[in-house]
Amino acid sequence: MIPPGAHDPVDGPGRAPSAADVEAAAARIAPHVRVTPTIDAEVAGVGASFKLECLQVSGTFKARGAFARLLGARAAAHEAGRAPPTRVVAASGGNHGIAVALAARALGIAADVFVPRGAPAAKLARLRALGATVHAQGDGYAGALAASRGFAHEHGALESHAYDQADTLAGQGTLAREWLRQQPGLDALLIAVGGGGLIGGIAAWLEALADRGEPVPRLVAVETEGCPTLHAALAAGRIVEVEPRGLAADALGARRVGEIMFPLARRRIARAVLVPDDAVRFAQAALWRDLRLAVEPGGATAFAAIAAGAYRPAPGERVGVLLCGANVDPRTVADLADAA
Amino acid sequence: MIPPGAHDPVDGPGRAPSAADVEAAAARIAPHVRVTPTIDAEVAGVGASFKLECLQVSGTFKARGAFARLLGARAAAHEAGRAPPTRVVAASGGNHGIAVALAARALGIAADVFVPRGAPAAKLARLRALGATVHAQGDGYAGALAASRGFAHEHGALESHAYDQADTLAGQGTLAREWLRQQPGLDALLIAVGGGGLIGGIAAWLEALADRGEPVPRLVAVETEGCPTLHAALAAGRIVEVEPRGLAADALGARRVGEIMFPLARRRIARAVLVPDDAVRFAQAALWRDLRLAVEPGGATAFAAIAAGAYRPAPGERVGVLLCGANVDPRTVADLADAA
Repeated sequence: MIPPGAHDPVDGPGRAPSAADVEAAAARIAPHVRVTPTIDAEVAGVGASFKLECLQVSGTFKARGAFARLLGARAAAHEAGRAPPTRVVAASGGNHGIAVALAARALGIAADVFVPRGAPAAKLARLRALGATVHAQGDGYAGALAASRGFAHEHGALESHAYDQADTLAGQGTLAREWLRQQPGLDALLIAVGGGGLIGGIAAWLEALADRGEPVPRLVAVETEGCPTLHAALAAGRIVEVEPRGLAADALGARRVGEIMFPLARRRIARAVLVPDDAVRFAQAALWRDLRLAVEPGGATAFAAIAAGAYRPAPGERVGVLLCGANVDPRTVADLADAA
Repeated sequence: MIPPGAHDPVDGPGRAPSAADVEAAAARIAPHVRVTPTIDAEVAGVGASFKLECLQVSGTFKARGAFARLLGARAAAHEAGRAPPTRVVAASGGNHGIAVALAARALGIAADVFVPRGAPAAKLARLRALGATVHAQGDGYAGALAASRGFAHEHGALESHAYDQADTLAGQGTLAREWLRQQPGLDALLIAVGGGGLIGGIAAWLEALADRGEPVPRLVAVETEGCPTLHAALAAGRIVEVEPRGLAADALGARRVGEIMFPLARRRIARAVLVPDDAVRFAQAALWRDLRLAVEPGGATAFAAIAAGAYRPAPGERVGVLLCGANVDPRTVADLADAA
């Protein structure tokens, strides 16, 4: 069911990151990414602690995983006495590609980003402005991914998968490590899910803490009704394919969750809730009106769960809401706020 | 030179807030305002520590002063055995009016906001949505202010001046108190100036710290070339009138700095720099592109000083930049970012 080649053979099979992996990733990426702040605020009448990862380098949390992947591969090469990677290949129509292009530029590595045929010109322009070579090949994400693999194999380049590599998950896990240091008293974390790399990394860190006997917040996965990869997989008890559609398909629209994250998800995710697209639009409008943050649909999805009542905190429960991305045209947010 | 009646006779003449005044204001307003976060980031190639007061309730720092004024008056009435204020009057075409309307609603006080004739319908609508009674009277801010004073006198209502009352300055001073706890190592603070209530409150807090022998950051005032009320007053050695014009006139465009703040400014402000409107537009575009924050012109003015080179930090100097407001149409920010 999982296509071969999803993991770089040099790194061995994917495995869940350990606490040490997350710590190592945090140390490696610290010079390149931001410690993003938290703010306690009432938005649309709902009080929560927001983690502002929408202010991260590259506009989304993806920068953590991208830097962790490139720097992890560099460290592994150094340890093995091999030459460090000089070229990285990624497939993405969006935030992952931007993050890999930005990280590669910062580290002096060439980036080849594969986007599906027909991807919007603005996205191609943004990738090129970050110094990436853009290849518009293949139908949809799956087609671009297949093309990227052939290219990487041919050129001996490093692959950076959007959500299913151990180093990438360790990078995303640094977000949880940082967040719980900032806000140790949270009872629940609400996280939007696409391919599951972000919540997988967070789950890995929580599992490591729990294994040490530390109390950890409840982990709540939020997906739009049109992109329920994790919800469907948890319901089926195995990874299943869905056809992403709707508002958040662009950023959250993986067809299946990752192989590394799924066992973690089964153990550590307390609930997986679905929200309609309208709730996401409402959340985007409210986040601008009441908090002056313009976030993308995927970035507002976690808050949509609580704003729309799909997740109802218990009395006194302290809820942490991750705003994970802001790669959006502010005009869209203005239109939503005006219409609300 | 200073019009009589600028200070509520009940409160006595305006005086610079003491440390105790700022502490009292902080305790009073804490249930109503947000602790706004800071973030270290590189924007337009310039590294700084940003204080995100643009995420404050009401969209600007003005909420601190508005709550401090209303709650201060309530406390003073309680102490004097008088009835608490039930009606507040403010003159403002913008952020102060929004903040007073919001604070009054939260505290169950009626708000009458005087705006100049011809103020944009969107602003009137926003004030009304916050429950305020809106009076469009007088020419410009000065005319609206005069009308508001007559109304307040007639109705025995509390006046909330935009920047020249002791309680209001104490409220704005809570921002400095909060910021230096979050970032104790800053060498300089860059602050946009309109009527000077914000930087006056900050200066009062820094003076109180310095009087206790604590090290304090250098205070740098930033104004646009079109609204140089403080720059002109410091150069003249006395408060002078200027005719505000240009991009930031709306939010920073007082005609003169406040009476309370000016002596503080002369003692505590290390430099007052001017930036052209183009630098403010550049700063707005860069703050969206590199930090994903949509801020208003006045909110971007402090950063414009460093981004445009009007203020050049010494090597190793840690600069704190206040982003003080985000009451802007995101479309404007998108247009600036696209054009940059």
